[in-house]
Amino acid sequence: MTEKQFEFSEKKVRVYFGGNFNMLGEMLDKESAVLITDDNIYSHHSEKFAGWKTIVLRAGEKFKNQKTVDEIINRLIELHADRQTFIVGIGGGVVTDITGYAASVYMRGVQFGFVPTSILGMVDASVGGKNGVDVGVYKNLVGTITHPRFLLYDYSFLETLPKKEWINGFAEIIKHACIKDRNMFDFLKENTLDYFRDSIDNTGTLIQKNVEIKYNIVANDERETGDRKLLNFGHTLGHAIENTAGLPHGSAISIGMIAACAISEKINGFPAFATKEVEQLLSLYQLPVSYAVDKERTWQVLLHDKKKSGKDMNFIVLNEIGKASVKKIPLSELKEIFFNLS
Amino acid sequence: MTEKQFEFSEKKVRVYFGGNFNMLGEMLDKESAVLITDDNIYSHHSEKFAGWKTIVLRAGEKFKNQKTVDEIINRLIELHADRQTFIVGIGGGVVTDITGYAASVYMRGVQFGFVPTSILGMVDASVGGKNGVDVGVYKNLVGTITHPRFLLYDYSFLETLPKKEWINGFAEIIKHACIKDRNMFDFLKENTLDYFRDSIDNTGTLIQKNVEIKYNIVANDERETGDRKLLNFGHTLGHAIENTAGLPHGSAISIGMIAACAISEKINGFPAFATKEVEQLLSLYQLPVSYAVDKERTWQVLLHDKKKSGKDMNFIVLNEIGKASVKKIPLSELKEIFFNLS
Repeated sequence: MTEKQFEFSEKKVRVYFGGNFNMLGEMLDKESAVLITDDNIYSHHSEKFAGWKTIVLRAGEKFKNQKTVDEIINRLIELHADRQTFIVGIGGGVVTDITGYAASVYMRGVQFGFVPTSILGMVDASVGGKNGVDVGVYKNLVGTITHPRFLLYDYSFLETLPKKEWINGFAEIIKHACIKDRNMFDFLKENTLDYFRDSIDNTGTLIQKNVEIKYNIVANDERETGDRKLLNFGHTLGHAIENTAGLPHGSAISIGMIAACAISEKINGFPAFATKEVEQLLSLYQLPVSYAVDKERTWQVLLHDKKKSGKDMNFIVLNEIGKASVKKIPLSELKEIFFNLS
Repeated sequence: MTEKQFEFSEKKVRVYFGGNFNMLGEMLDKESAVLITDDNIYSHHSEKFAGWKTIVLRAGEKFKNQKTVDEIINRLIELHADRQTFIVGIGGGVVTDITGYAASVYMRGVQFGFVPTSILGMVDASVGGKNGVDVGVYKNLVGTITHPRFLLYDYSFLETLPKKEWINGFAEIIKHACIKDRNMFDFLKENTLDYFRDSIDNTGTLIQKNVEIKYNIVANDERETGDRKLLNFGHTLGHAIENTAGLPHGSAISIGMIAACAISEKINGFPAFATKEVEQLLSLYQLPVSYAVDKERTWQVLLHDKKKSGKDMNFIVLNEIGKASVKKIPLSELKEIFFNLS
């Protein structure tokens, strides 16, 4: 027998903070580009899409599935999209996740960029290259890790963002503070959701800080073998209840973070007063901190979490506010703790 | 506005020439691995799969579509496959293309390897990281470029390979000779299909040579921006007639190579006697060199070829036997030549 070994390698992401949607007209050729958005964004900003080939998706997490990807692929064929076509996803996390996925597999990958329009999209979903769709109740079960060529931040989209979407987005900002940045945690404590809603400038600065936190983690661990796992803080339980209970992502992971704090107390010496502090900050940003979870059903979904590894779960715990670790917990032990959470 | 830039990077492929299927038992944990094959291979080699979790697909190109991928994803969920699961595709090009694609997107990518069982799979389909499925008549329109962790060549699978599949595979071997290796072209001229069918050892040597030719091209141009395009020799017309006419891949690209030789004569000074030589070699290996093509329909499919770039086609022409180039041909000119081919 002969054994041989062959080697390979890839990407740069340009990020424009405080840019303007109209820059797309300078960056891309309208003839060969395809924009993808949802009917919500399109109805608020239809004038922006004039002259662009645009695919308009139905808005909402329930359309974040393979069927929508299949529809996008068929539309791309109809539009004669080829390898030179540049695709731009304009919207919240659902639109950018699904656009990134469709662009990553169409013709084995065409170039794409994002214009995130929600806080959640700006600080989290569009950042880091993860894309994909849900399969039934399993969140993001199918997808790829492929970075966009650019991220264009046009904060004017935030002017039409409903308050509930601001709340949704701050869950991920608080998550970043919990796992990586005690100073940002304290800064958030000193302010309120309305403070940021009233000042796009301050929000812009906060968004840029959060993108940098996330990129610093991702750049060192693109395939999530180490530090990137920390970004899943609150997401193991969060994802499991998100689709089973039909909660918004931010609400689900807010509850997930509180549960993860309680588990951190039990297995990682995280102090109870710190859990209280996290709870207070989430409440300050109007996020829910408790929910009547259907534990049996949630557990069944949790067993399919991507962070499960054989008979263990890679669970994210806090050491202190601003510092997190990955703990491999046997599923049997996690189940015991989970079913005993109040 | 602030502009920032973030950077990233990836892989090694182990190739075991002349190995044995049973090595899988040493390389992988039967508990956590999942094998994917088709009912054809499974019926001939069911004993090999004893004790392994196995997904058996229906054999044939017509099942190489998203629906089959969706079925695989659902089976992986049922089997509780997680990020530690190792998936192995065992079969011809359809099985390895679809397995590589499903593994690349399940949980955003789990590890996988291939045991190619056909000549075509061994010298081409399983080599180079391209995977995917067809969308209607459009070949491999959706997929990724993701390398397997290993390729395990067990030549004993060739003992049950039908003669028509040998013929199919030699089309790609002759393609490699045409674009890169005049010596191999001459060596093939001196032998016959039966010579190789009667000697697994000689076939093994030929296969290894072809894998090395392809890997050398791919390693230098993974994303097909340069030399890798040469591997598409015969494939632009080939793919267009493969699914419209329902021809085997080898037959379709054999006809495609002859057409590409005729086009090379017209636009690249390729000598007519050399086209004759290619035709004779294809005939020696029992491949068809002409076919009554439905030109209008073929042209419509060709317009969706992945090698189309705006108003041009990146077409592969021969300079001489063993040397090829990419020529950007305006679609209007290609259409003119194509409709005038005898």
